Amino acid sequence: MKLLYLFAFVVLSKPALFAGEATRKKLISVSENIRVEAWEQVGPVGPAGGAQWSVRKSTLHGGKQEGVDIIEVDNGRLRFTVVPTRGMSVLSLSAGDARIGWRSPVQEVVHPRYINLQSRGGLGWLDGFNEWLVRCGLESNGLPGTDTFTNNQGNEANMDLTLHGKIGNIPASEVEVAIDAEPPHRIRIRGRVDERMFYGPKLELWTEISTEPGADSFCVTDIVTNRGAESQEFELLYHTNYGKPLLNEGSIFLAPVARVTPLNEHAARSIDRYPHYAGPTPGFVEQVYCIHPLHDGKDRTLVALSNKAGDLAVSLRFSVKELPYFTLWKNTNSEVDGYVTGLEPGTNFPNNRRIERKFGRVPKLAPGESHRASIDFAIHHGVESVQGVAKEIAAIQGQIKPVLDSSPEKKD
Amino acid sequence: MKLLYLFAFVVLSKPALFAGEATRKKLISVSENIRVEAWEQVGPVGPAGGAQWSVRKSTLHGGKQEGVDIIEVDNGRLRFTVVPTRGMSVLSLSAGDARIGWRSPVQEVVHPRYINLQSRGGLGWLDGFNEWLVRCGLESNGLPGTDTFTNNQGNEANMDLTLHGKIGNIPASEVEVAIDAEPPHRIRIRGRVDERMFYGPKLELWTEISTEPGADSFCVTDIVTNRGAESQEFELLYHTNYGKPLLNEGSIFLAPVARVTPLNEHAARSIDRYPHYAGPTPGFVEQVYCIHPLHDGKDRTLVALSNKAGDLAVSLRFSVKELPYFTLWKNTNSEVDGYVTGLEPGTNFPNNRRIERKFGRVPKLAPGESHRASIDFAIHHGVESVQGVAKEIAAIQGQIKPVLDSSPEKKD
Amino acid sequence: MKLLYLFAFVVLSKPALFAGEATRKKLISVSENIRVEAWEQVGPVGPAGGAQWSVRKSTLHGGKQEGVDIIEVDNGRLRFTVVPTRGMSVLSLSAGDARIGWRSPVQEVVHPRYINLQSRGGLGWLDGFNEWLVRCGLESNGLPGTDTFTNNQGNEANMDLTLHGKIGNIPASEVEVAIDAEPPHRIRIRGRVDERMFYGPKLELWTEISTEPGADSFCVTDIVTNRGAESQEFELLYHTNYGKPLLNEGSIFLAPVARVTPLNEHAARSIDRYPHYAGPTPGFVEQVYCIHPLHDGKDRTLVALSNKAGDLAVSLRFSVKELPYFTLWKNTNSEVDGYVTGLEPGTNFPNNRRIERKFGRVPKLAPGESHRASIDFAIHHGVESVQGVAKEIAAIQGQIKPVLDSSPEKKD
Repeated sequence: MKLLYLFAFVVLSKPALFAGEATRKKLISVSENIRVEAWEQVGPVGPAGGAQWSVRKSTLHGGKQEGVDIIEVDNGRLRFTVVPTRGMSVLSLSAGDARIGWRSPVQEVVHPRYINLQSRGGLGWLDGFNEWLVRCGLESNGLPGTDTFTNNQGNEANMDLTLHGKIGNIPASEVEVAIDAEPPHRIRIRGRVDERMFYGPKLELWTEISTEPGADSFCVTDIVTNRGAESQEFELLYHTNYGKPLLNEGSIFLAPVARVTPLNEHAARSIDRYPHYAGPTPGFVEQVYCIHPLHDGKDRTLVALSNKAGDLAVSLRFSVKELPYFTLWKNTNSEVDGYVTGLEPGTNFPNNRRIERKFGRVPKLAPGESHRASIDFAIHHGVESVQGVAKEIAAIQGQIKPVLDSSPEKKD
Repeated sequence: MKLLYLFAFVVLSKPALFAGEATRKKLISVSENIRVEAWEQVGPVGPAGGAQWSVRKSTLHGGKQEGVDIIEVDNGRLRFTVVPTRGMSVLSLSAGDARIGWRSPVQEVVHPRYINLQSRGGLGWLDGFNEWLVRCGLESNGLPGTDTFTNNQGNEANMDLTLHGKIGNIPASEVEVAIDAEPPHRIRIRGRVDERMFYGPKLELWTEISTEPGADSFCVTDIVTNRGAESQEFELLYHTNYGKPLLNEGSIFLAPVARVTPLNEHAARSIDRYPHYAGPTPGFVEQVYCIHPLHDGKDRTLVALSNKAGDLAVSLRFSVKELPYFTLWKNTNSEVDGYVTGLEPGTNFPNNRRIERKFGRVPKLAPGESHRASIDFAIHHGVESVQGVAKEIAAIQGQIKPVLDSSPEKKD
Repeated sequence: MKLLYLFAFVVLSKPALFAGEATRKKLISVSENIRVEAWEQVGPVGPAGGAQWSVRKSTLHGGKQEGVDIIEVDNGRLRFTVVPTRGMSVLSLSAGDARIGWRSPVQEVVHPRYINLQSRGGLGWLDGFNEWLVRCGLESNGLPGTDTFTNNQGNEANMDLTLHGKIGNIPASEVEVAIDAEPPHRIRIRGRVDERMFYGPKLELWTEISTEPGADSFCVTDIVTNRGAESQEFELLYHTNYGKPLLNEGSIFLAPVARVTPLNEHAARSIDRYPHYAGPTPGFVEQVYCIHPLHDGKDRTLVALSNKAGDLAVSLRFSVKELPYFTLWKNTNSEVDGYVTGLEPGTNFPNNRRIERKFGRVPKLAPGESHRASIDFAIHHGVESVQGVAKEIAAIQGQIKPVLDSSPEKKD
């Protein structure tokens, strides 16, 4: 944990150029009263050459996206777009010509000022949901519904938790781009998102989304810190979402699995086919599976989604110490309504926090304490590369037979 | 319906100048990342002369109207102001020196970011209500209250519908001005407003608000399309509102009427005087009448509001196939609280959707299906012109005696 | 009351330069479509010299404070920052090196567009609470909870009042700076905030926050006017908040007191020590005391907060006719959670309006009627100055023994 604080220190300091960084550019800063409308940097850095890359900050206009800040990163092979205005979510991801993300019926990058999380019985989050990666949390995530909290009078009171919490609709307070001076000249997008209130959580998220020029992979590393004086519950779930062409009829989800539990009776009826995907199916009702992943003995695990042909896949590597629970969301609905599946590592499953607490899956942070979580994403092109991932996952699974529960947890 | 799709096609295409249009200017476009701060075009077009006209796009500043986009159209006789930021509502309408709209106690053009539709028990819409024409809809309109919907788990869940729905507080995503190259050089303001969400409606509104230079009339033509993959309910009501000088003591509402039903017991007590208006009356409680209009045998109907002197009137012509139900809202309150009456053609009456559904007045759109609605507005100056409208309405009424219900529908 | 209307008239008129004012600058105006991004004026005025002073309008950037307008006033001895975007609240106050305000865990000046007052069971106001002075009101203030109102159908309906009402999150519609031409060249920041809706309150707040160059004091004068046609309840409470270094262990609250009633049982247990402060105490639960202040025979009263050493204090002078009730809020929590006390003159105590109405503490304004309230704030440096205030307070108290209630009012 010492290392994390060092990282945080570096980001908070204000040198024009940090040693070891060829570029260091503040794009947004509450502390320095900065918001850069547009900016770009292109590479390669230095005479030695290397992959062409670019980082472009721009501002969106029109409709519900007026004033939204975006940062487009192109490392020469991968392109992704970070949205500071929407909690440092990653809007889109593509590899060459292939979109790795999905197409949501929400077609604009909706400014949080148009989101009322409480609308539609606590489902207002869905008015803006179209990211490839959106964090759910931090005070809570998961399904809406009533939970208790301690109010300003020290009494237990009720509040209606809203779907997936606030963090995805809070604009980042500090955002910067840094490019390492040393090869491989890693490109780093960093941001801080504050979920703070009086008489409530003081949770701080620092994220670094980074990639190497020319690489097929990138990394999201987050640190959540409790800046309050009392211990604080939190929930963090990475809602990463995939559509065509990666997702199609015959796509398969690959993971080393100890146990799979359906979220509800509806999902239970299809548990035998939980890793397999149908094509677009109008009227399809979402199926959610709660997975306890196995690890490699060093707390590392690996999951993947492959297309039917087995020549295109995405993989996620992470630590089960950092993110012990994994949710698979299958929503193979019609394309216009959102043909999509979610691969979602988290500190918890997406039940209402009241239920997660009952099952002991709501972690707490002591005052000043941090929780780190990091996910390595890679895109695999070609049968050989995809088979390599599949073999690695099979090796972690080994001889262990997954337990497939035929019914959901008893929740209430 | 074929024609409608053609219209939609034209608007969605992106030529710099469409054949037959002397001017075609994108003012707002999500797809092209455009928002024009200020712009204007003045006429007449060509050497032949004609009425002086202008179209002016500007941006409002200060208070709750900071950043609101408006488009002011002056055709030489009529002036009206379209508000892209507020769902392509028409803020004001005047003819020469006479205001046709009203004065609301809401004096600013409130940016939707300051509206919380759920506040005040679902009456938050009233925080921004001051338009001459505001659409109510699209998923629902009418009174707040609980209705059911199908949630993301495929279950029936409850949601609290809010007064008059969302569409009036959604900023337009695409807005353009077009001027016909050919005489009479019609001026057209077009806009698209999206009421879209994940696990919810995907309703799209395209509107064209158009007028001829020098004319006493203009037209609002809307197309609502279901962009989802499943059939979708919708409700659309045009809340057009009139105050002094058109509305005063002795003003009269003229319409060919099959049946009039009071919305509640309070309105029932005054049904005998439903088309007649009092002067400003502090403490007046609104009276709402639900009207089934007659038509001319070709589905066209015509309603009007005349001042007491009978020398100034506004008329609305529309199809009862497109807009079968008509609501008359009488709110002859004190001037500072809002002395106003609403003439409101719609697909439904403004009860809560739960009640409208029970009475079979909530239409559905199949996937990809559109509903078109068009209203021709005209201002009538002078006794002769007003009497002409009155005669036309009387001709539609003919010998048919209106049914005036003495009590409201049994709703629950 | 005649004088007040004169004041209002002056502010509403639009001369470029009002007689007697050396500077008159509109910074924000809905009526003139103005919002000045940045502006400053520095003094002294005229050849005679005097204290250096400045008034600076600027705009905040980044995170939740993007687009927030602030006005920083430095009179040469005192510095304070007015926030037009947040209802003309006063964000901070400092005297020389000493901060008189506090440090909230809410670290940004949150734009109202990010505040949902209804969130967290009606506690959403706390997402933006970090001002030195924030008004609570105007339709209601105090604790959240259900109260009745008359809806658009003339029926009694329920609404969920939210903590401390709306006024602190409504942007000002008219803002100007005026500097008197005559010595002492008083600096005046004026603003109008409208709490208006259709079928609801039409309450208007005009405030003038003014100070003299070189002075240790400044004045907040407000006029609340009912612009509707019917009588209207209102509640106005000045939530002024103090932290380190003025507040520390051993600080003392000084006031001439007729009666002190604890807000709840928790506060009741510590009533004997109500004017004394602890140091930062993690887990401290707020204690609120409802005070009926004594006055000097001419309706004027005076309260103060002194540090332990007795060499730094703030005092508030006001009329008990204008602000008859005084609330003391003790929240000596840990510093990161908010170590703070509130000195809060008001028209009422901060119970839910339903309870205040029951006890006859919710005033009404007739149509067109205004309520004026003015508070003189002074900073006292040095033991002599602080003792002077203490003596003055003691003189008002005289021989009257305060009644300290051992239990709260019976509320329901």
